[in-house]
Amino acid sequence: MNENVVQTTLSQSFVTESGHRFEQADVSFKTWGKLNRSKTNVIVICHALTGNIHADEWFPGFFNEHGLVQTDEHFVICINVPGSCYGSIGPLSVNPDTGKPFLAGFPPITIRDMVRFQQQVLDDLNIQGIETVIGGSMGGMQALEFAAMDSRVRSAIPMAMGKCHTPWAIGISHVQRQSIFNDPNWHGGYYKPDSSPDRGLSNARMMAMLSYRAPGDYESKFGRKLQPDTSLFQVESYLNYQGKKLVDRFDANSYITLTRAMDTHDISRGRGTFEETLAQISIPILVVGIDTDLLYPVAEQRELARLLQAGEFGEIESVHGHDAFLIEFEQLNRLTTEFFNQFRSEVL
Amino acid sequence: MNENVVQTTLSQSFVTESGHRFEQADVSFKTWGKLNRSKTNVIVICHALTGNIHADEWFPGFFNEHGLVQTDEHFVICINVPGSCYGSIGPLSVNPDTGKPFLAGFPPITIRDMVRFQQQVLDDLNIQGIETVIGGSMGGMQALEFAAMDSRVRSAIPMAMGKCHTPWAIGISHVQRQSIFNDPNWHGGYYKPDSSPDRGLSNARMMAMLSYRAPGDYESKFGRKLQPDTSLFQVESYLNYQGKKLVDRFDANSYITLTRAMDTHDISRGRGTFEETLAQISIPILVVGIDTDLLYPVAEQRELARLLQAGEFGEIESVHGHDAFLIEFEQLNRLTTEFFNQFRSEVL
Repeated sequence: MNENVVQTTLSQSFVTESGHRFEQADVSFKTWGKLNRSKTNVIVICHALTGNIHADEWFPGFFNEHGLVQTDEHFVICINVPGSCYGSIGPLSVNPDTGKPFLAGFPPITIRDMVRFQQQVLDDLNIQGIETVIGGSMGGMQALEFAAMDSRVRSAIPMAMGKCHTPWAIGISHVQRQSIFNDPNWHGGYYKPDSSPDRGLSNARMMAMLSYRAPGDYESKFGRKLQPDTSLFQVESYLNYQGKKLVDRFDANSYITLTRAMDTHDISRGRGTFEETLAQISIPILVVGIDTDLLYPVAEQRELARLLQAGEFGEIESVHGHDAFLIEFEQLNRLTTEFFNQFRSEVL
Repeated sequence: MNENVVQTTLSQSFVTESGHRFEQADVSFKTWGKLNRSKTNVIVICHALTGNIHADEWFPGFFNEHGLVQTDEHFVICINVPGSCYGSIGPLSVNPDTGKPFLAGFPPITIRDMVRFQQQVLDDLNIQGIETVIGGSMGGMQALEFAAMDSRVRSAIPMAMGKCHTPWAIGISHVQRQSIFNDPNWHGGYYKPDSSPDRGLSNARMMAMLSYRAPGDYESKFGRKLQPDTSLFQVESYLNYQGKKLVDRFDANSYITLTRAMDTHDISRGRGTFEETLAQISIPILVVGIDTDLLYPVAEQRELARLLQAGEFGEIESVHGHDAFLIEFEQLNRLTTEFFNQFRSEVL
């Protein structure tokens, strides 16, 4: 389906909200399909906290014949966000001032930084119009900020997130970061690749997994069954495995940077009240919630949809909790294609 | 109100379910009021995970003129559970075989061990009848087991718990224990008093606090306000403070022992199905749930009440979440005294 993985540098320097300038900003992205002549057939997919550019792998249902993404029609792009560890600038990038990786010296990143970074990629590709921006969780926060920040965007589909990060969600992030800081291998964030704070990161991931999946999901998967040949319940063994799996593929400084970015998520920051800020966004926006999402309960998406000028709320019913935005593609396809087609017939 | 704090030893040895025999079992308890001649005017209050014998301090609303506990009528007792660190046998007790504290060598404790331990105290006091057993969270698990295990008990009020610990709740316990195990001061549980795994225990407590209080509670208390003179949100500073506060008053090995005890909670273990086990309990039981309890959602208490022979479900409406059983005394008093008076008029 004509896909390309691109590893390049932004044509312009990239400056974070905190004022750090990257003269040479590495960026990694993946595209599917072809740009039309007017460069307006674009769908931007924003990835979540530990996500990468391979949206066809973690959003597979959107790429099939029932999905939002039709690669013979659309030019689809998924860009690794700054602060991550999958090819764009992040804590593992070399700091040209020192010749060594930034590690904990990497500047703070906000959701708005992620959007401006992606805007520069889209500028470099001379994109003129964006049909929709879609993402869940941290990806949904970007989708909403995109709607506020980029006049090329004609619709947006933020999923499983709210108008700002709530104190409870910040608390969950905080305790996860704390467990990384508590790892004796942390060394203030200046650890060696061969002695990284794996136990802390694993612990953080386990805690995250308990917020990503609903209690009913754990119930039907594990109940109170014991793990053979151990003194553990199956659920304990499963969490240990999930923790270990993330350690093998993610960097602790990136985890710190990106959870902090999520904590900064506040669509109204510096823009007035929530009501004023959201009422200024006029494009159609489908805000998708999941009935069992603990981290971002549906009340948050309902509120967003209500405060947006052309907001619409769509609810996914699922036993899976927050992660349902990566799972329930039958419902997601129905909601998103209905929204998208209605919107397209209006503007095209 | 005629209260006594007692530090003594059980008259008989105490043997855990796992087979460990304590020849001399220390026990600490507190009583209020006087035993009647028939020794039947007894109310047993069971404490929660990090609770102690001073029920009048953490259940203050039950001790006032509107409360369940009328110390001119009742003889009330609150017993420190084995495995804790407040006067009864626990990891800090001296192991007579070694002359040193048990620490991680303390045997596993179950909710049923806690009940049998308390039964031995009640036997030593020659108690003949127990009007009710009340407790929340781990205390509620004991109240339910008391109803199944002690024929002296005439009613019970388990609050904010379910028929067994769910895999999600076990997962929350697991990650908390893991953060203690990850502390370099843990040393397999054989730490010195002056170098205890404080950061791990603090992290565990912070995580617990996020499950004890509902998101709405954090929202109204903290919102997205920043803590002056720090780079932290107020909620982060609050969690740090709560973590530190527990470290100053609780032992990490006790925390491990008692969270594991909660994970063992399963009223049906070795007794048949849940339906069979609960249908065999014939005394009136008021199962109290809190509408915002994340850890033990009201579906669990409703189910319990339905499966019990004479179960009744009572719901507390609260913004506070799980901890509401320590807060919402106006509603708790209404529910519990109504239940208790109806039951008393039937049996007295």
